[in-house]
Amino acid sequence: MKRFALNSATTKRWPLPELVAGCVDAGVPGVGLWREDLAAYGVDNAAALVREAGLAVTSLCRGGFFDAPGWLEENRRAIDEAAAVGAPVLVLVSGGLPAGSRDLDAARAHVGEAIGALVPHAQAAGVRLAVEPLHPMFCSDRCVVASLGQALDLADPYPPEAVGVVIDTYHLWWDDQVWTQIARAGRENRIACFQVADWVTPLPAGVLLGRGLPGTGCVELRRFREAVDAAGYAGPVEVEVFAEQVWARPGRAVLDEAIAGYLTHVA
Amino acid sequence: MKRFALNSATTKRWPLPELVAGCVDAGVPGVGLWREDLAAYGVDNAAALVREAGLAVTSLCRGGFFDAPGWLEENRRAIDEAAAVGAPVLVLVSGGLPAGSRDLDAARAHVGEAIGALVPHAQAAGVRLAVEPLHPMFCSDRCVVASLGQALDLADPYPPEAVGVVIDTYHLWWDDQVWTQIARAGRENRIACFQVADWVTPLPAGVLLGRGLPGTGCVELRRFREAVDAAGYAGPVEVEVFAEQVWARPGRAVLDEAIAGYLTHVA
Repeated sequence: MKRFALNSATTKRWPLPELVAGCVDAGVPGVGLWREDLAAYGVDNAAALVREAGLAVTSLCRGGFFDAPGWLEENRRAIDEAAAVGAPVLVLVSGGLPAGSRDLDAARAHVGEAIGALVPHAQAAGVRLAVEPLHPMFCSDRCVVASLGQALDLADPYPPEAVGVVIDTYHLWWDDQVWTQIARAGRENRIACFQVADWVTPLPAGVLLGRGLPGTGCVELRRFREAVDAAGYAGPVEVEVFAEQVWARPGRAVLDEAIAGYLTHVA
Repeated sequence: MKRFALNSATTKRWPLPELVAGCVDAGVPGVGLWREDLAAYGVDNAAALVREAGLAVTSLCRGGFFDAPGWLEENRRAIDEAAAVGAPVLVLVSGGLPAGSRDLDAARAHVGEAIGALVPHAQAAGVRLAVEPLHPMFCSDRCVVASLGQALDLADPYPPEAVGVVIDTYHLWWDDQVWTQIARAGRENRIACFQVADWVTPLPAGVLLGRGLPGTGCVELRRFREAVDAAGYAGPVEVEVFAEQVWARPGRAVLDEAIAGYLTHVA
């Protein structure tokens, strides 16, 4: 259990104080938080709550959305929040194409520039930026970064201690290049975060909330964990599942199933 | 208009005789057919109908689904039907993971072997097999071939006149490697079929029926057409859109909009 972490999006409707108490009770050492958690309880309160419970904050979701007005200031705030809550990593989801645009190359180039614009602030705050490639089904409206290779290319101009990548099994499992790219990510010292969810079908409308808890789908989760380990990653393994039918259940029951799935299919 | 072709799936509820008459009236030179069209009218009747109207059959959809029982015989029948209807190309959609399996590498290896098993029959029938990579959102349940590079790797062991690939804008637009791979496909003489649809969101439940007519979405359609042309492809451009709201409209109205979108955004 020492690497297991619960990403709070998995139990979206579990209030943070209950989530923290539940994690402590279940022997969970770390939690991945969302900015929404911090907004709901106040950054300092949330930070104190987690710290006093002895939990590590493994990551903060999320910055990015570089296609939105005010992205620079918003991302600086996200970096500050990550620092305040003790998260070593801020996950960046790039955003999609600007409204009406078909220029994917330009959108991707802008992401690279936006990351560069954030690096000094992130370094000063002691927060590592982590570029997350999302599944290509999100390419137009959520994240133009659609493969691990592409995320590594975007990170490449910046020091690895400032900019890493997120490896999320849900987004990357279909890619026949992913094993090569995980090895590359290790060599280049870029693996900042490892998240686990399973792929289940049919996908729901909008496709955002179609993930499965570990073991309920078709992803070779253990192979991913072994691959990131072989690439030199020894950090937390966050279970991060967005699914309406998971959110509808009691947080503790979901946590217990996430732990069981992790132990059986990932660890 | 000389390269435009209507794939009959775009006007799924337009009976074949009306579709053929509508295409002739609109000056459309070619149609891509489905095995369902042939089953509904009889292979010989359908072939005569199209031939007597002076239309070319640009492709037959589809073979593949190599995870299904009886796939070998079923695909031999599909090849025979393609030959009977005068389709130079049989589109292959590989099928997904076998039920309960997580072994994507094995499923992909089986696809390669299955293609090999079909090559002699296809060559004897004068039908070119065309491996179609589908969007990665279909990887588990419809097509384990998820990128153009992968399709080309699968085709590689076989002569290019026997096994080519399908380049479909809907499935490939997100891939930052696609331009390189289109050039490779040209060098390796593998471009057997070029299909056009646009990407629109939000995706519907099940994600199969979410395509847009050319110009309604965010894909750089002309860039794709120019890229396949630059790679040496001079064949038909099939408009192939699956969408409930398109199917609900009169066939002729959809055809006219497909032509207009093609002329404005592709040609």
